[in-house]
Amino acid sequence: GAQQLPPQQGMTLYQPIMQSKLDVYNLTNYTFSMKDPEPERDQSVQARMQRLREKYSVQGMRRCVDGVLVVHQHGHPHVLLIQMGNNYFRLPGGRCREGEDEVSCLKRKLSIKLSPPNQYTQPSWEVGEVLGTFWRPNFETHMYPYLPPHITKPKECRKVFVIPLPEKCIFAVPRNYKLLAVPLFELYDNTKRYGPVVASIPQALSRFSINYLGS
Amino acid sequence: GAQQLPPQQGMTLYQPIMQSKLDVYNLTNYTFSMKDPEPERDQSVQARMQRLREKYSVQGMRRCVDGVLVVHQHGHPHVLLIQMGNNYFRLPGGRCREGEDEVSCLKRKLSIKLSPPNQYTQPSWEVGEVLGTFWRPNFETHMYPYLPPHITKPKECRKVFVIPLPEKCIFAVPRNYKLLAVPLFELYDNTKRYGPVVASIPQALSRFSINYLGS
Ligand SMILES: [Zn+2]
Ligand SMILES: [Zn+2]
Ligand SMILES: [Zn+2]
Ligand SMILES: [Zn+2]
Repeated sequence: GAQQLPPQQGMTLYQPIMQSKLDVYNLTNYTFSMKDPEPERDQSVQARMQRLREKYSVQGMRRCVDGVLVVHQHGHPHVLLIQMGNNYFRLPGGRCREGEDEVSCLKRKLSIKLSPPNQYTQPSWEVGEVLGTFWRPNFETHMYPYLPPHITKPKECRKVFVIPLPEKCIFAVPRNYKLLAVPLFELYDNTKRYGPVVASIPQALSRFSINYLGS
Repeated sequence: GAQQLPPQQGMTLYQPIMQSKLDVYNLTNYTFSMKDPEPERDQSVQARMQRLREKYSVQGMRRCVDGVLVVHQHGHPHVLLIQMGNNYFRLPGGRCREGEDEVSCLKRKLSIKLSPPNQYTQPSWEVGEVLGTFWRPNFETHMYPYLPPHITKPKECRKVFVIPLPEKCIFAVPRNYKLLAVPLFELYDNTKRYGPVVASIPQALSRFSINYLGS
């Protein structure tokens, strides 16, 4: 007949399943430098919304992609953000061209924002899993992690991907921007300062089993 | 030599990659009924925190699991929540026993909260991907989607899973509770009413490519 087996010594009975893993290296593994400035197109929220409106009338809904690059300090995750001016914080990423696929666009944008100009030191970008998708129903700053009911003509769809980093690499940022490593506890519940997309990164990353590596 | 191919007619160039799919059926596909009441253990937040404190001193950190069951109305996702009393909304789930694995625990809790008593009508639960993990650093209601820095003795770890539903099934809820289908737009940015775990479900689901099915 069936025999009851004793529980195995040292066996973890609650091994996580259906959970993605993410390797995260120490901030000190990376080298940060500067490169030529990028032209800044919008000096205000108003200017940004006006440009969105003009482009929409020609091209329809804007498709955007963003990358979340994670490092750690003392085992707490930090996200790389680009600071433009005093109070505007963005993920590296941007607008897809007509017909351009999301992954190619994101690699192109990551290179523009973060790669050193010398091709021999450029990181070869890997685009990982989707962290979330945000919709802009109107020509204003509100964005939602769903298409609000009865919105048939959204103005923008923004897809956020995790970017698994190599163990070491060199970043170079246009000198009119700053690159920041911002801890999750600073982003969490802080939509006011960072906007809905960036402020939701702590929740989005909480589904990963994070492997902290490096010094 | 290499020949440049013309773009294929009707080909979607920006097919999402690394994005999980989720089948979501219409609310009307499901049948809702009632069963015998469940004993209610805590009549207040204070009582809940007191019980957490007492159990912690004996068993250490509480491990909990929650399930997110998604239906739709008019193509907008709704999450099944259990309402206890007037103002307490919970995902179906609960505390893992010592040594109990998360998936078995969640199936057991889903049956207690949602399965009809008759075994022939019970849904066979499938536990899907992790949506997020929340930590409770202290004996209070605050929870975070990360272990806050320098917290070495968290009091609770709560893991949230998506529960893919069958096309049709019968739910039965203890008659002292109510089962609600709450739209994402009601949960979003509403930590005050629903708490941090439930209020973050819209962001967590935004990473899926949702397939809306049913009438
Ligand atoms: Zn520290
Ligand atoms: Zn508005
Ligand atoms: Zn409707
Ligand atoms: Zn507190």
